[in-house]
Amino acid sequence: MKTVPVPLQAIDSRLYKIHLDSGLLTQQDFMRGIMQSFNAGKQVAVVTNPQIAKHYLPSLQESLSNYEVLPVILPEGEAHKNIESVMSIFHQLSDAEFNRSCTLMALGGGVIGDITGYAAATWMRGVNFVQLPTTLLAQVDSSVGGKTGVNIPQGKNMIGAFYHPRAVITDLNTLHTLPAREFKAGLAEVIKYGLIYDEQFLTWLEKNIDKLIDLDKQSLIYAIQRSCEIKAEVVAQDEKEQGLRAILNLGHTFGHAIEAAMGYGKWLHGEAISAGMVMAAKLSYELGWIKSIDLERVQAIFQQTGLPIEGPKNLSYEDYWQRMVKDKKSRDEGLPLVLLKSLGKAVVSYDYTEQQLRKILPK
Amino acid sequence: MKTVPVPLQAIDSRLYKIHLDSGLLTQQDFMRGIMQSFNAGKQVAVVTNPQIAKHYLPSLQESLSNYEVLPVILPEGEAHKNIESVMSIFHQLSDAEFNRSCTLMALGGGVIGDITGYAAATWMRGVNFVQLPTTLLAQVDSSVGGKTGVNIPQGKNMIGAFYHPRAVITDLNTLHTLPAREFKAGLAEVIKYGLIYDEQFLTWLEKNIDKLIDLDKQSLIYAIQRSCEIKAEVVAQDEKEQGLRAILNLGHTFGHAIEAAMGYGKWLHGEAISAGMVMAAKLSYELGWIKSIDLERVQAIFQQTGLPIEGPKNLSYEDYWQRMVKDKKSRDEGLPLVLLKSLGKAVVSYDYTEQQLRKILPK
Repeated sequence: MKTVPVPLQAIDSRLYKIHLDSGLLTQQDFMRGIMQSFNAGKQVAVVTNPQIAKHYLPSLQESLSNYEVLPVILPEGEAHKNIESVMSIFHQLSDAEFNRSCTLMALGGGVIGDITGYAAATWMRGVNFVQLPTTLLAQVDSSVGGKTGVNIPQGKNMIGAFYHPRAVITDLNTLHTLPAREFKAGLAEVIKYGLIYDEQFLTWLEKNIDKLIDLDKQSLIYAIQRSCEIKAEVVAQDEKEQGLRAILNLGHTFGHAIEAAMGYGKWLHGEAISAGMVMAAKLSYELGWIKSIDLERVQAIFQQTGLPIEGPKNLSYEDYWQRMVKDKKSRDEGLPLVLLKSLGKAVVSYDYTEQQLRKILPK
Repeated sequence: MKTVPVPLQAIDSRLYKIHLDSGLLTQQDFMRGIMQSFNAGKQVAVVTNPQIAKHYLPSLQESLSNYEVLPVILPEGEAHKNIESVMSIFHQLSDAEFNRSCTLMALGGGVIGDITGYAAATWMRGVNFVQLPTTLLAQVDSSVGGKTGVNIPQGKNMIGAFYHPRAVITDLNTLHTLPAREFKAGLAEVIKYGLIYDEQFLTWLEKNIDKLIDLDKQSLIYAIQRSCEIKAEVVAQDEKEQGLRAILNLGHTFGHAIEAAMGYGKWLHGEAISAGMVMAAKLSYELGWIKSIDLERVQAIFQQTGLPIEGPKNLSYEDYWQRMVKDKKSRDEGLPLVLLKSLGKAVVSYDYTEQQLRKILPK
């Protein structure tokens, strides 16, 4: 037998930058500089939804006036995060004869970002992708990690690709049109970064949470910056130390059970994981890993933010357990949960008993 | 403004191997060794079409008897290289609850390989992919380069991804059931590698072409091995020296014009590019780059193989030109063509005049 070895090249030794400030989308020079930084071609498709288009598309088109801009307006909501939306983008790109050097911009929240990133990953085997996240959740979560994808009836994010943006442009002005409830749900992920990785950041958040809720610019910049830095560090380490990335899911197994049990959209993701993070903290306390004063701090910061610290009243232990097992497809080893060794240090653990889990969940 | 740099990891510092021999698909130990080499999970989907399934699926299933094998049978032909076929794979994977550690195997020619590779690239953001090419064309072309994708009504390969296999298993026995016409069309690509990159290989082919046509095992192994090596070298160099990869398209711009003018499928791809490579050689001769004896060698080897050295009788210069311009989307610089500086050295060139091109094409 003959064997031909085929070396694979390192595809990405580059980096990209997340730019954080107020008013970036309307600064023509800045936008042009970003486009030139990666040798963008003349064609730019801006993928967004009707509500966001109303607020930001006209001024964005103005600052991209040197480019051939194709607005692609998708219907709003997770229900449209599917292959039909992707095909709709492809057909519009094709009709406009968009070529290999075109750029796809995602102007919106996580749903728009996930759909657009996947379209960019697979149009002509990959074109330029730029993220313009307009929700706090997208700004601190989707900006880092390269996950793109869409749902199929059988499951969420079943079709997708790892595909990184050329740049992320986070214009803080977009937060002024974000409903307060969604903004607070986004803060749940910000607090998560403190809890899993950086006790100092948690302390900073405890002092500055009211400023964040008031949309104080400098506080927002610091909170988003630190969140993105932590996510980037965790994701980068995952390549050596397999599984570390899972700590980004603190509270998520509990939270997904809440979301699924209530019907998606009833509880916002950030609300569900807030209650979930408190559950994880309670279980960590039961295991003797954190003190009662730590648990109180966890509950206090979510409460101060106006986020739930308990799940819905009507869910039983069995309601949680069945959905948690399904969510994680647990096997013989048991169900892995992200727990807190201390404030600022999360681990993936199987070290809890059913009795301990029952204690922190409803009957 | 704050800027957060996000480093991108080198995703692929690995390599994969192309394994070449007779009877590999039916060797249980070999197949198991390959699967273990990349820590494959228990689930294997074998994507193929009815004709190939009839010949090879039962014995392949036997050699994969330690795995949960899901046959996915797609209708045959380029007409089915579309997103519907990909969705059909996804739905079958989903119904069979295939997870992140599953493997997708492409058992077939280029169409099956392109569809399956794209499905593997995007199912759960990327799962294991193994190629089992059953045509000479797929064995020497699709095995290297990572191009996957499907067509949309507006164009070929418009949706796709660069995605490399974990391994390529080239079982020479599959060539025994390949129609002679398709085998010879595959030889066109083999000869191409000699013409563009390796005069010694061309000389070897001139001496051994009859053995190849008789499916002599050792000759086949060498020809396929050398073809894959050359393609791998060219693709690897393209990352530094942008555009070199284009030399792999010797004869293709002329060939695509023939395929499009005749209606796809009338002339096989390999037949069209044989005539196209002779045209490119004639133009290179007109430019004074190769001698008349070189041109004669080019014509002789295609003739000896039983491949066309002229285009269809009824095509005019205008028939070619219009389709060639469309194929390459040429702009101000003119239409780039791959030409021969000498036998064994191809370049991309704009250095020809309309008059010279008219001379080598029909009136």
